[in-house]
Amino acid sequence: MKALDELVGLMTRLPGIGRKSALRVAYYLLKADPSFAASLADKIRDLKSSIAFCSICGSYTEEDPCPVCSSPSRERSIICVVEQPQDVVTIEASREYHGLYHVLGGLVSPLDGVGPEDLRIGELMERLGSGESKEVVVATNPTVEGDTTALYLKRLLEPTGVAVTRLATGIPVGGDLEYADRLTLARSFRGRTKL
Amino acid sequence: MKALDELVGLMTRLPGIGRKSALRVAYYLLKADPSFAASLADKIRDLKSSIAFCSICGSYTEEDPCPVCSSPSRERSIICVVEQPQDVVTIEASREYHGLYHVLGGLVSPLDGVGPEDLRIGELMERLGSGESKEVVVATNPTVEGDTTALYLKRLLEPTGVAVTRLATGIPVGGDLEYADRLTLARSFRGRTKL
Repeated sequence: MKALDELVGLMTRLPGIGRKSALRVAYYLLKADPSFAASLADKIRDLKSSIAFCSICGSYTEEDPCPVCSSPSRERSIICVVEQPQDVVTIEASREYHGLYHVLGGLVSPLDGVGPEDLRIGELMERLGSGESKEVVVATNPTVEGDTTALYLKRLLEPTGVAVTRLATGIPVGGDLEYADRLTLARSFRGRTKL
Repeated sequence: MKALDELVGLMTRLPGIGRKSALRVAYYLLKADPSFAASLADKIRDLKSSIAFCSICGSYTEEDPCPVCSSPSRERSIICVVEQPQDVVTIEASREYHGLYHVLGGLVSPLDGVGPEDLRIGELMERLGSGESKEVVVATNPTVEGDTTALYLKRLLEPTGVAVTRLATGIPVGGDLEYADRLTLARSFRGRTKL
């Protein structure tokens, strides 16, 4: 069936959705109320046009500047630097952080030909120029690229006097020493804290 | 973000898609070319209107009767009875079966208040009336409801002289005795075949 095959073909391009999941969704749509498929279709079509990037921090937002950047109750002396806009949503969900954000839009990755000039680092420097910031928390992933980017930012920001910190790396809460890989274990030793 | 939350809310109603998968898909759509979201939306909206039920066998089809029912090359003496339209697609994908189909649209389930009269059993009897059929293969799932339905069909069809068979139940190919449950093991003993 052409209509089914075409939908399944498009759906398998989505992340985390294979042929079997796509078929299951398609069969569900065939059984479901047509108004459900219609509203799902509307939301998919209109998502991108109703969400833009915040002109200050670069995260996804429906109004510019975004609610975080324009909030009077956020700590304005601390900026959390993340790789992608969705990282802001993830960190916000933890309700642990109350400062501002800055989205880089990628990570320094010489192998992929991505240099600092391709990221929103100039914009970060401009924001720091106002003198309001006391600390930059680098919240990039603990990967080679994430670490390289963090190190680059540390060196770049050292002369400005702003404290540059990095999210702690270690064994996840509820995790098991036995299943921790060697690098994680090594990092959690180096980063051990006083009880 | 309202647009994002609404899309994620609708997506989590789809089978096999939780909040995290829905968010991943939404972020993908935000990054992807808008034409991709537009064509995905079109396919979702139009799926149900371009696919209907075959008036003979009851499976999903874009033309009526469906390609299987109208094919001159299918064995017309054998009818495979299945629970749902998608079971036809699953069996067709195995390329093992070359007869006709009949979709019941459910299973006999007294606990859920579903009796034989709620299923497409009258339509099956009508098809058998033509005398063309020699065998009915009941391909319902090996569950309580699937077995009940198979037994019901066996008793109903016995007087017509049509052979009623059932898909073999047993240990899956590549499976492991150790992980087979007791019921499956018991069934595979009862259904053992001569080597």
